[in-house]
Amino acid sequence: MKAEILAVGTEILMGQTVNTNAQYISNILTELGIGVYYHGVVGDNTERLRECLTISLTRADIVIMTGGLGPTQDDLTKETVANVVNKKLILNEEILNKMKLFFKKIEKTMTQNNRKQAYFPEDSIIIHNTKGTAPGCIIENEGKVIIMLPGPPSEMKPMFEETVIPYLSKKNEFKIVSKFVKVFGIGESILEDMLLDLIDKQSNPTIATYAKQGEVTVRVTSKSTSNEKSLELIMPVINEIHKRLGNAVYSTENKRLDEAVGELLIKKNITISIAESCTGGLISSKLSNIPGISQVFNRAIISYSNASKMENLGVKPETIEKYGVVSKETAIEMAKGIRDVSKTDIGVSITGIAGPGGGTEEKPVGLVYISLSSKDNVQYKELRLFGDRSRIMNVASLHVFDMIRLFLT
Amino acid sequence: MKAEILAVGTEILMGQTVNTNAQYISNILTELGIGVYYHGVVGDNTERLRECLTISLTRADIVIMTGGLGPTQDDLTKETVANVVNKKLILNEEILNKMKLFFKKIEKTMTQNNRKQAYFPEDSIIIHNTKGTAPGCIIENEGKVIIMLPGPPSEMKPMFEETVIPYLSKKNEFKIVSKFVKVFGIGESILEDMLLDLIDKQSNPTIATYAKQGEVTVRVTSKSTSNEKSLELIMPVINEIHKRLGNAVYSTENKRLDEAVGELLIKKNITISIAESCTGGLISSKLSNIPGISQVFNRAIISYSNASKMENLGVKPETIEKYGVVSKETAIEMAKGIRDVSKTDIGVSITGIAGPGGGTEEKPVGLVYISLSSKDNVQYKELRLFGDRSRIMNVASLHVFDMIRLFLT
Repeated sequence: MKAEILAVGTEILMGQTVNTNAQYISNILTELGIGVYYHGVVGDNTERLRECLTISLTRADIVIMTGGLGPTQDDLTKETVANVVNKKLILNEEILNKMKLFFKKIEKTMTQNNRKQAYFPEDSIIIHNTKGTAPGCIIENEGKVIIMLPGPPSEMKPMFEETVIPYLSKKNEFKIVSKFVKVFGIGESILEDMLLDLIDKQSNPTIATYAKQGEVTVRVTSKSTSNEKSLELIMPVINEIHKRLGNAVYSTENKRLDEAVGELLIKKNITISIAESCTGGLISSKLSNIPGISQVFNRAIISYSNASKMENLGVKPETIEKYGVVSKETAIEMAKGIRDVSKTDIGVSITGIAGPGGGTEEKPVGLVYISLSSKDNVQYKELRLFGDRSRIMNVASLHVFDMIRLFLT
Repeated sequence: MKAEILAVGTEILMGQTVNTNAQYISNILTELGIGVYYHGVVGDNTERLRECLTISLTRADIVIMTGGLGPTQDDLTKETVANVVNKKLILNEEILNKMKLFFKKIEKTMTQNNRKQAYFPEDSIIIHNTKGTAPGCIIENEGKVIIMLPGPPSEMKPMFEETVIPYLSKKNEFKIVSKFVKVFGIGESILEDMLLDLIDKQSNPTIATYAKQGEVTVRVTSKSTSNEKSLELIMPVINEIHKRLGNAVYSTENKRLDEAVGELLIKKNITISIAESCTGGLISSKLSNIPGISQVFNRAIISYSNASKMENLGVKPETIEKYGVVSKETAIEMAKGIRDVSKTDIGVSITGIAGPGGGTEEKPVGLVYISLSSKDNVQYKELRLFGDRSRIMNVASLHVFDMIRLFLT
């Protein structure tokens, strides 16, 4: 079964919104063993939407559309789909009543234009929306399936999980299974060289590598009649890759580095505190996304000012004076300091120059020091990163997570 | 001139990577007055890529491709494009030498598979890559333009800015200008009702609204022969919308809420400190993305643990005991406390239950208190948010930024 995801919305084409829905849906379809062959985005324009949908229906079995189900005049997905598959739009009284109740519950007024959201192409399967006013729907037509969902991810996701996943699971024939080996600290082309013989003889499973800001992912994908068979084909390859890449592998379960580290901290019950300067809360923010992290994550101090480094972390004024704020000495005192005040098992710190301003010849933009302090030990690392402010902050945060990971394993 | 953005990469179709490149490029093309009519994503597959490119060339004047320029075997963009436009691939010695120098500089070994990156379709304009090993190129063929760029945003963006923008600016005939009115605190359908007569009589400029997690954007777009003429058409409409929506408007310059607030803090030189609990560093992290913020952003305490709330922020044990950690009383003491220890003009705080765990009947997931303390005043707000952990954290952070904004204006 071939799937295509078609987003409708001029705001995406103008760069106002990132199409994260496509990623979310692709992830789940891949897990379900449904191959996603294309993503498309088209504006709020009847004619172009019609053309795109027509192309999609020639090459995919399932077309999942997001967006264009809102109450306003430029929301025209249902109208256009109905026209392409030659069906009428019909008012659904049950949905209209639900919408009235929803507006009452959130204490807002239902306007006349919301009524349009209760119309659907005839013979649709309705997808209820508990988080907003735009229900979705599914149409089966001439062997093809068209699924329409609203654009806001907070509405789309629960609808996808409650209705679309069970619906699609039933339709599924082939089982595609993918496993991911995630690597930090080895570049993509060196990594491919290390795996070249495996990649060359690939057919089922296939092996592909891709790189993203300091991380490389190796994907191993297999297709067969059952998940078990696919897994059987994959696992020896995963194990061989893991053996060759060794300690640079931080997950074989498709986790992000921060996620792998957060879960390891929780599992080992190692308490942590963080002193961040140049990353300004990014490390804490990533860590606090992990459910259950509050068990081990005690606190973070975002010590932008020197005063904060001294008052909250006990960095000595003479250290800052002698070595500068961006120095291994300051990083080490920050890590020790945050661990002391928090009484946690480990304390980690980061100080550096994220740019665009603040660099000098001696200490250029991209110079970052990270440190980890534990009961018997303190370690540090000097990083020299390139790229813009956001890349430097992100890659620096990955190095911190990797330092924690290597300490824990 | 119609443009289409075509990304090449199975990792996007599998949901491993979000196509942020499309957003970045769309934003700039829109500013340049080049209409983006479609986004597409296709996998690392010669046949499907060829078909997609062929469709793109029938409907767009400019096709901008990202991805598939890497050193590995599944990188096949240049090969496929050369085939579609019937051109040979030719080794560029200058690029090969540059690549050798690049590898020397970053102290890594150049592998045999990197050589492939020095081949380009004949008559290409080369786009140099100073951040990585994959140069891009531009081909002009039968009145159409194909631009090939690498996938990693940190490489693609500087190449786009240095070479592609100057190239496209020369080709441009029509001037499309868009302005955005950004609104917090009014829902999309109520907002459309408030502007319905303006939207109904629209033709040039056009008006569209779209919603995203608590925020609504109104876009006003005009097309004419010069930027000045387009702006003349737009500005009266922008002013009228601003008048109707009043204080709910936080930007008419297409800024994010955090960005508008950060810049306001810098401009007014109001120093700030932050005490975050449930958002775990998200607010600090957003604020520290604003260049120059270190002038006014003194520090943040991410007080996950109760100990940290008491030790770093001076929250009284009896307050936590009597009212709970998630209460207006704790929020107020946190805001006062962070302001006291930091000696900043304002201190803001947030405490709540982001979920998925931790909710009770009395204090459900989504209950959040925020507070702002200044010299003569302290204010607070109770929020009852819905959605998953990440939505709650994000919308809560927007409320904090909006509270700061309303205080400053």
